Amino acid sequence: MRELDGHPEFCAVNTATFGFQTPIHETIEAVAAAGFGGIAPWRREVEGQNIKNIGQHIRDAGLKITSYCRSTYIPATTRGQFGRNIEDNCRALNDAAELGASSFMVVAGSMPEGSKDISGARSQVAEGLALLCDHARSLGVKISIEPLHPVYALDRSCINLLSQALDLCNVIDAQNLGVCIDAYHTWWDPQLAQDVKRAGQQNRIFGYHVSDWLSPTTDILNDRGMMGDGIIDLKSVRSMVEAAGFVGLIEAEIFSSGNWWKRPILETLQVLRQRFASVV
Amino acid sequence: MRELDGHPEFCAVNTATFGFQTPIHETIEAVAAAGFGGIAPWRREVEGQNIKNIGQHIRDAGLKITSYCRSTYIPATTRGQFGRNIEDNCRALNDAAELGASSFMVVAGSMPEGSKDISGARSQVAEGLALLCDHARSLGVKISIEPLHPVYALDRSCINLLSQALDLCNVIDAQNLGVCIDAYHTWWDPQLAQDVKRAGQQNRIFGYHVSDWLSPTTDILNDRGMMGDGIIDLKSVRSMVEAAGFVGLIEAEIFSSGNWWKRPILETLQVLRQRFASVV
Repeated sequence: MRELDGHPEFCAVNTATFGFQTPIHETIEAVAAAGFGGIAPWRREVEGQNIKNIGQHIRDAGLKITSYCRSTYIPATTRGQFGRNIEDNCRALNDAAELGASSFMVVAGSMPEGSKDISGARSQVAEGLALLCDHARSLGVKISIEPLHPVYALDRSCINLLSQALDLCNVIDAQNLGVCIDAYHTWWDPQLAQDVKRAGQQNRIFGYHVSDWLSPTTDILNDRGMMGDGIIDLKSVRSMVEAAGFVGLIEAEIFSSGNWWKRPILETLQVLRQRFASVV
Repeated sequence: MRELDGHPEFCAVNTATFGFQTPIHETIEAVAAAGFGGIAPWRREVEGQNIKNIGQHIRDAGLKITSYCRSTYIPATTRGQFGRNIEDNCRALNDAAELGASSFMVVAGSMPEGSKDISGARSQVAEGLALLCDHARSLGVKISIEPLHPVYALDRSCINLLSQALDLCNVIDAQNLGVCIDAYHTWWDPQLAQDVKRAGQQNRIFGYHVSDWLSPTTDILNDRGMMGDGIIDLKSVRSMVEAAGFVGLIEAEIFSSGNWWKRPILETLQVLRQRFASVV
């Protein structure tokens, strides 16, 4: 396992962690000044702006882009809407390429409004991902599927187990398709150790995310904890991921409307740096 | 698949569905009068009372006891507390036998306060279940493990996948150990169809529970929906369970502090009967 203490350059910050308080150029400067090695920007910070310029700023600041966040949900009620969802994601992939992001983060979506057919949603995701992989390959961009905790299976993602995401990679069989393993979404999975190992053997680990599961969790979407404040054995999960061959940047992504999003970005960066050094 | 319309006798009601508004003898009469075939009482309604008498009343009312709810959580911080948890569950098993319940419902528990070791909690559950199976066998009682949705992995159960519960059954290798499949806990599981089939092949399906997953869910513990009010394709799940050989009573268990627990028990029974006939 890598020593993280004294090595903030092994760590990246997902900008959602700050609740989008600051414009992207200010966020880039702050993350770089705090010594981190990478950043993961969101489409809302990038679209409609000079994207090449943002990418250049990130590189000039000495940061890598761990991923560009994130996909429009894929499943839809009609074929027309499905097609528009794919087109929208293709445009975002173009932006990822222009930004210089090595991967595009896919949160798949799930059953459209009124549907009870999760198998159907999963089929649409498989079909859509195959199309996106083709487009992404032409751009030199990787696609990273993030399996989400089953509590989000209704409205955010129908891809809920690491094993399921890996099966999907095998079916689609594209070299630019892999998984992002997020400790928050996967810590409970009794198959985690074996599936992380499998992901490594297949060279599919494109990212590793950390935050913490709070006890109690007051809001299932936006009450994630700072690493060390919850019950996830983060060192144990990282040891699995690194033993499986992952050598990329470890990314913090904390959705926390009631706490961290209210704090000044410099304070959050300071605590992130301490926690990366001690508990991740 | 069985026809449920006109056959409320294929259905049972878990008394938690009424929020424990009425004393057990009144609940038994109401459930029987509504035409249901079974009831699942809770320890809080039974302990400290004349248990034989309650069991006799249930049988005289023409009801089966689908299960006796439920175990004390198994994992503990100290060996002493672990032993006391097992003893407590053994006493409940004695009561299950006296009641005439064919099975005792196990919700396993998870990491004790302050622990981050979910693997350790799982080992304690395996050890504890083996002890409980021994005791239950001497009483002629079955033990039914209910895998809970992963959102409960921190504080209610570290057994979160049907496949995991079945693996545990194989390790413990007791004929009186099986699983309760709850649609609320398992609807999202991409392995559900294959694992239900496996459960049937191993003669491990001891129970099948229904309720519904509401959109949105306002409280992750006590905002379950009446069947038909949420997004679970209940007929699809039941078809898997019955195709796997399950012929027992289908049990409704609805934790709903904000809605159904506030309604009169007779109203809830009427709606339950309609929904069993139409959407389960």
